[in-house]
Amino acid sequence: MNPTIELLHRHRSIRRYTDQVVPDEALREAVAAGQAASTSSAIQSYCVIHVRDMAKRRRLVELTGNQEKVAACGAFLAVCGDTRRHRLAAARDGKTYDARFEAFLLAVIDASLFAQNMVVALESMGYGICYIGGLRNRPFEVDELLDLPEGVHPIFGLCVGVPAEAPAARPRLPVDAVLFDDAYPDDPAVLAELERYDTAYERYLVERGAEPRRWSSIMADKFTSPVRADQAAYHRAKGARLD
Amino acid sequence: MNPTIELLHRHRSIRRYTDQVVPDEALREAVAAGQAASTSSAIQSYCVIHVRDMAKRRRLVELTGNQEKVAACGAFLAVCGDTRRHRLAAARDGKTYDARFEAFLLAVIDASLFAQNMVVALESMGYGICYIGGLRNRPFEVDELLDLPEGVHPIFGLCVGVPAEAPAARPRLPVDAVLFDDAYPDDPAVLAELERYDTAYERYLVERGAEPRRWSSIMADKFTSPVRADQAAYHRAKGARLD
Repeated sequence: MNPTIELLHRHRSIRRYTDQVVPDEALREAVAAGQAASTSSAIQSYCVIHVRDMAKRRRLVELTGNQEKVAACGAFLAVCGDTRRHRLAAARDGKTYDARFEAFLLAVIDASLFAQNMVVALESMGYGICYIGGLRNRPFEVDELLDLPEGVHPIFGLCVGVPAEAPAARPRLPVDAVLFDDAYPDDPAVLAELERYDTAYERYLVERGAEPRRWSSIMADKFTSPVRADQAAYHRAKGARLD
Repeated sequence: MNPTIELLHRHRSIRRYTDQVVPDEALREAVAAGQAASTSSAIQSYCVIHVRDMAKRRRLVELTGNQEKVAACGAFLAVCGDTRRHRLAAARDGKTYDARFEAFLLAVIDASLFAQNMVVALESMGYGICYIGGLRNRPFEVDELLDLPEGVHPIFGLCVGVPAEAPAARPRLPVDAVLFDDAYPDDPAVLAELERYDTAYERYLVERGAEPRRWSSIMADKFTSPVRADQAAYHRAKGARLD
């Protein structure tokens, strides 16, 4: 295992940070490294809002489900899919912007590849990070707070800072449960792999002093009622076509 | 710039490969490193189909827009968003799976973070890669070829192999065009940044012996007519809620 792969395996989501700020130079270096990731036909449909204003940070704590770390971390970034530049370029050239679901999908993929490269860069500098999916909890309010125009879609937040904790790794699915040859396996094969993983996951919970539960049962419960039910309406309101 | 960030900057999409195969051990190591990426609440909603069958590879050449590298590369991977495991776990426990657009979005984000980590791992081992967005060109036919059940959504392909070319880096947007403080900039500010980038992009095209064109004009043209217009219909057919 080479040092880069070791670094990837050392990743933990960090939820407690020291009060050290993240220098602008470090953020800019990480953004540039993020931009080195692949982007479909160079469309680069992403942007980052670095939320410096502490009043906005405190409001984002509420909007993301009372996650104090959003205000307490060294830097908070809102990562967005960005089709705005393409729309403005089309308008300037007198062209009609007419993109479908594919363009939205591209923006989500582009923003995610960019962000993950940025995260690897930040972790290589010794920073810790936590993705904040809670940025999708109350999208219309986040939108207003960050003054986002049509075509800019907040996808997730990122807390960045110097780690003040060293959590244990949460076990992942076995490689054989995610890597398949030539076709997707049949249901009994999938369930058999999950059973193996459930045992490992229960052990991890017990070691942390938590109630033992099967991963598959947690997942079965998790998706019984819709969360973030206004996501589609929000993105549609911001110009995405989902039809 | 540390060695990891240098590695990220050395990334180029590789379109020509030697005929060396990619050993299973290398792929498995890369998949495991991919799995170390963040995943929302451990849902891990992704999977990879390693297409070994050369008849399938040749068919995928056609389905991705006659991209010969899909058959010629060392290994071809179809990266999918995967909500199947959650659906099967819910059915086993007698629960009703009821997820909205958010669950599909999570699968796309999870699959992308996973894939980018996997790519960084592969590049750290000396392999080259190329994301194949063309896997979304003819989704219903790809679906049939890979025998994908409900809840499994092909997002992109990945060619992997030993590079047989060393292409120049395509310039990216300036950091100031993607990193903003506290709010999204106004239209004139966005267009001014694009103008600066257009000049750099034209220079890059001229250096490669191509016709000089502004990036912003290429983008203005690109989104005037919908491509992959059946993406929404396809994902809906596979169980995603886009409403």
